[in-house]
Amino acid sequence: MIIVLKENTSEKELEHILEKINELGFRSDVSRGEKRTVVGVIGDEEKLREEPLKALPGVEKVISVLKPYKLASREFQREDSVFDLGYGVKVGGGNLMMIAGPCAIEGYDILHEIAVAVKKAGANVLRGGAFKPRTSPYSFQGMGEEGLKILRDIGHSLGMPVVTEVMDPRQVDLVNRYTDLFQIGARNMQNFNLLNEVGQTSKPVLLKRGMSATVTDLLMSAEYVLSNGNKRVILCERGVRSFDSSTRNLLDLAAIPNSKGLSHLPIIVDPSHATGRPDLIPSMSLAGIAAGADGVHIEVHSHPELAKSDGPQALLPHQYEELCGKMRSMAELLGKTIQVSGKA
Amino acid sequence: MIIVLKENTSEKELEHILEKINELGFRSDVSRGEKRTVVGVIGDEEKLREEPLKALPGVEKVISVLKPYKLASREFQREDSVFDLGYGVKVGGGNLMMIAGPCAIEGYDILHEIAVAVKKAGANVLRGGAFKPRTSPYSFQGMGEEGLKILRDIGHSLGMPVVTEVMDPRQVDLVNRYTDLFQIGARNMQNFNLLNEVGQTSKPVLLKRGMSATVTDLLMSAEYVLSNGNKRVILCERGVRSFDSSTRNLLDLAAIPNSKGLSHLPIIVDPSHATGRPDLIPSMSLAGIAAGADGVHIEVHSHPELAKSDGPQALLPHQYEELCGKMRSMAELLGKTIQVSGKA
Amino acid sequence: MIIVLKENTSEKELEHILEKINELGFRSDVSRGEKRTVVGVIGDEEKLREEPLKALPGVEKVISVLKPYKLASREFQREDSVFDLGYGVKVGGGNLMMIAGPCAIEGYDILHEIAVAVKKAGANVLRGGAFKPRTSPYSFQGMGEEGLKILRDIGHSLGMPVVTEVMDPRQVDLVNRYTDLFQIGARNMQNFNLLNEVGQTSKPVLLKRGMSATVTDLLMSAEYVLSNGNKRVILCERGVRSFDSSTRNLLDLAAIPNSKGLSHLPIIVDPSHATGRPDLIPSMSLAGIAAGADGVHIEVHSHPELAKSDGPQALLPHQYEELCGKMRSMAELLGKTIQVSGKA
Amino acid sequence: MIIVLKENTSEKELEHILEKINELGFRSDVSRGEKRTVVGVIGDEEKLREEPLKALPGVEKVISVLKPYKLASREFQREDSVFDLGYGVKVGGGNLMMIAGPCAIEGYDILHEIAVAVKKAGANVLRGGAFKPRTSPYSFQGMGEEGLKILRDIGHSLGMPVVTEVMDPRQVDLVNRYTDLFQIGARNMQNFNLLNEVGQTSKPVLLKRGMSATVTDLLMSAEYVLSNGNKRVILCERGVRSFDSSTRNLLDLAAIPNSKGLSHLPIIVDPSHATGRPDLIPSMSLAGIAAGADGVHIEVHSHPELAKSDGPQALLPHQYEELCGKMRSMAELLGKTIQVSGKA
Repeated sequence: MIIVLKENTSEKELEHILEKINELGFRSDVSRGEKRTVVGVIGDEEKLREEPLKALPGVEKVISVLKPYKLASREFQREDSVFDLGYGVKVGGGNLMMIAGPCAIEGYDILHEIAVAVKKAGANVLRGGAFKPRTSPYSFQGMGEEGLKILRDIGHSLGMPVVTEVMDPRQVDLVNRYTDLFQIGARNMQNFNLLNEVGQTSKPVLLKRGMSATVTDLLMSAEYVLSNGNKRVILCERGVRSFDSSTRNLLDLAAIPNSKGLSHLPIIVDPSHATGRPDLIPSMSLAGIAAGADGVHIEVHSHPELAKSDGPQALLPHQYEELCGKMRSMAELLGKTIQVSGKA
Repeated sequence: MIIVLKENTSEKELEHILEKINELGFRSDVSRGEKRTVVGVIGDEEKLREEPLKALPGVEKVISVLKPYKLASREFQREDSVFDLGYGVKVGGGNLMMIAGPCAIEGYDILHEIAVAVKKAGANVLRGGAFKPRTSPYSFQGMGEEGLKILRDIGHSLGMPVVTEVMDPRQVDLVNRYTDLFQIGARNMQNFNLLNEVGQTSKPVLLKRGMSATVTDLLMSAEYVLSNGNKRVILCERGVRSFDSSTRNLLDLAAIPNSKGLSHLPIIVDPSHATGRPDLIPSMSLAGIAAGADGVHIEVHSHPELAKSDGPQALLPHQYEELCGKMRSMAELLGKTIQVSGKA
Repeated sequence: MIIVLKENTSEKELEHILEKINELGFRSDVSRGEKRTVVGVIGDEEKLREEPLKALPGVEKVISVLKPYKLASREFQREDSVFDLGYGVKVGGGNLMMIAGPCAIEGYDILHEIAVAVKKAGANVLRGGAFKPRTSPYSFQGMGEEGLKILRDIGHSLGMPVVTEVMDPRQVDLVNRYTDLFQIGARNMQNFNLLNEVGQTSKPVLLKRGMSATVTDLLMSAEYVLSNGNKRVILCERGVRSFDSSTRNLLDLAAIPNSKGLSHLPIIVDPSHATGRPDLIPSMSLAGIAAGADGVHIEVHSHPELAKSDGPQALLPHQYEELCGKMRSMAELLGKTIQVSGKA
Repeated sequence: MIIVLKENTSEKELEHILEKINELGFRSDVSRGEKRTVVGVIGDEEKLREEPLKALPGVEKVISVLKPYKLASREFQREDSVFDLGYGVKVGGGNLMMIAGPCAIEGYDILHEIAVAVKKAGANVLRGGAFKPRTSPYSFQGMGEEGLKILRDIGHSLGMPVVTEVMDPRQVDLVNRYTDLFQIGARNMQNFNLLNEVGQTSKPVLLKRGMSATVTDLLMSAEYVLSNGNKRVILCERGVRSFDSSTRNLLDLAAIPNSKGLSHLPIIVDPSHATGRPDLIPSMSLAGIAAGADGVHIEVHSHPELAKSDGPQALLPHQYEELCGKMRSMAELLGKTIQVSGKA
């Protein structure tokens, strides 16, 4: 940690700072520049971070040298994490996870129709929401447990692991009974109690980036799950809030290689929520894979006119199938693997 | 609701759209422009909003004419809401709520020292966190129930209502036993299950704006609380995320008159979290009152060097006292009232 | 154009609005909803846009139905624009433009070394700055005309068209004598007088997106050039300003298919300025091509330690060469062509 | 300047870095932490900033300790700058500049009517645009020199200094003949050649913050003017681009005390362009003064229905007059002075 002093900091203030550092059990190095004095503080930066050094008189700023996360970092684990999701599907280390399905579970028949189509097209994980975080209290809020049963029954009968969003720490046990992966939505990326709860389960967690979260914030949230003992966190880039309303969010594809440099965790891309526009999903899916994503999350609906949530942003099954062909070619070019689910 | 058709939409597609509107029980008006055709859809817009009209072939965009919130709107209630917070303190309709206290409750003695000081300076609500939403799992997470007891005991003995953050639906009952107002933090502004829970209590809710929430998003979250039957929501502007890292967030003071035009709910300002810089807090507090805020939320700590959370951003008690004098003069100039708490 | 009236607009105000529309020579359609009245205004929207209809009493908002640009739009020209840049190089319609070179021209020998290397690697346009828009008045401002000569001599001797930034309307004639394409930098995207000047030349214009420009803003700036008679505008996505400082800007790859849907103009990607990080440039270049970009702009320097501007963000020649191989494979997969320059 | 090394930097790389620093004529201090080594570089930071230290092998990041601007800084001049604008009007050091007038000069009679009204209300500087930076090439572009004459004649006959925007280095001489202050618009804040030109005149420069400029960027642009010899720069906060489209821009009032801490230059507020909404202008003007602004810039038009540019965002003269009364009371409360122009 580096402490930069104010221009006019007195020797007495400097002494007080050095004493304080010493008291806390750290060593210090003083470097006197022409205009500013800088103090290097040496010791366990994690403990140091907790100390309000910036409140000391004479301090202009405190600069961290180390990253604030540990278990999620590439320093902690050099090689890519690879997770087995069941039904022969892997993610990470060159294995791509292809998630598809409707925004919300709306009934057995419609989900079955969509699931059969996306499985045939090449998806290897089935998604569907049973609890929906809707901006308006008057919007459809999801089918709850009934929806979870439908999702699991259809997914498993087709040989696909299933993923669904959990929004509330009180739902974790219930959702755990039906799902193969937990999804934590963008709005809950910093719902720390929820992160603690899913961190205590044994299921992989798909953690979506918050709308105004930095890559560091995302990795800090992953650290919450990891520090509870659950080592299987899959990150998901889904766009951040921006001033250009022509897309729903701004897909930050550089976050993918950026995160992969900082962390061993897999990271996938969700062009559906990022753009909110079916016409942009195909190119953004391909760009995501080219950027190094470990998978692609796409909403598909066979009857978007009838969908109870986000219908207008879904791809039609035949559009998804066409896109899957292109994604497979792209994956092959880059030496990546897409497992067919249900082989096991 | 207005539907704008694509340039090359066929008559057949238009017919399908009109049939669909009719089926759903709405009326339509068609306006054929030189280049585009526009369809006005007449009926209950709230129901209409749920229908995926944008997914219909030939539709370019769907534009809402009405606001998506109802109970929170100025149309629903013309006059300002005024809430009685106990101990003689009111907020709204010209009454300013002056919240002060430390970021986190750290012990009886230190909170007592701060509380006595801020009460004397002019604060009429005491704050302190017992459950802290910390970005890092390794940071101090708060004293929990023990902290809540300390906060209530000190606040009530000084004749001040108390406010504390609730982060988890499972904590609502516990917190309810000790607090006079619930605070919902910025990170939980769209934690809809938590909003539903506090919406079912009878305590006022201080709802902080999320870091990337629009004013409309904030009012939609207020609508969640209101639609559960709890009519006492106090909004709080605390800055949004921005590209300029010289302040922690970007304080959006225009959100105050903007919100007051759209809604009858009181809205206060939190310059401590918005700026993260004690040197900017005084001027931003005064600017907040000048902008029309119904109160000011300021973190105060008597020993910021020792604080376990956000010490460097707190004002010292004597700085707060000096600022209170200026805020009172400003309030007087603008014809606003600041009650002294504990009179009752 | 659609006018939405306020909830309580009187019949008299509505009459005044309709009269005003009639006076201006437009027709109107009135649609009375349950809560709001909406007026459709029919006629030449371009003229209408100039009228301050929003200032009329009773008007809540005015919504444009048509796009504000014309010559740049896909409606104006359905098929992709393809431009011949000389030396056998084309851009648009499946032809990729590969721009490479140093940030600034620093001397003959160093530019020659870099130019030979990038040409060999596969670049087909040479770049180099002679006038540098530097944030600090104390930074290196470029070699001026001497630099332009060096750039042209080296580029043309190697059979490559050259591109350089022009920052001032007074420099347009001078730069025009040496360059094959004008570059308009992000900071000058809305320097309308400069756009008018390059619009009156016959050289293609590489127009970079401003740091906080929407895609519509970018197309409006292109319209300035086009409306002056210069039909050859090449857009360039180079990132927008964001709250995450881990990259210099936030590369908005969705802007590429978004722009291509709205406009016939080619659009290329500049991962160097977008990310400012050599480690992210390769994956963002590939992702850009996958997103549909018509070319890639990359800064290359053989001695970044000695560079006078932006050295740390440049690729080394051997890194660029390796990347070019990957970009060629990606282009081939997607059916795109990269011409070798200098064939003619 | 501080250099943080990568975790695995070798001794040889460190040696190379130290040699390089020595070669450049700087001293260095090495501080070896538990995980990272940090090198303090001591010497003239301005020169150092130009060196691409970040490109050296083994360097993770380079952190500046000093500010990148000098003449604009509070360190360079402790006391507030106060500028005499003519006609008895001052700005800075407790003197408020009240600029009012229409967006564009549209003719003698209409400007005269507005000027008389704003002068009577209390404005002490008259504004009006003769060259308009319009997003669309098809919009009204201003009256040019004819407009400048009208502005000067009316302003000076009423005893008011006048301010108008200059957009092009080629217009500086012309505009200089008529105006008392130059305005540099937000879109030209980083038009460095234009800054150089106005920096060589003897007229004060009103420099507006760019839409995505940090406070540091704004001060760097001021430095361009100052370093050319023109010491009279007045900064202007006018909002930055944001994700919430309910206001045109997001007014960043904290930038005012933030800038005043960093710089001796006056800074005023422009709520008209920041919000684009007449209903928000009064409260944002008062908040601006409360935040410490050295003046307020407001657009006023007597016939907004007829305005050729930005009519809907202008205040009516009687609204401006009412607001001026409130601004005077606010100024008095805060011990600020508003000169009546034309006394001299």
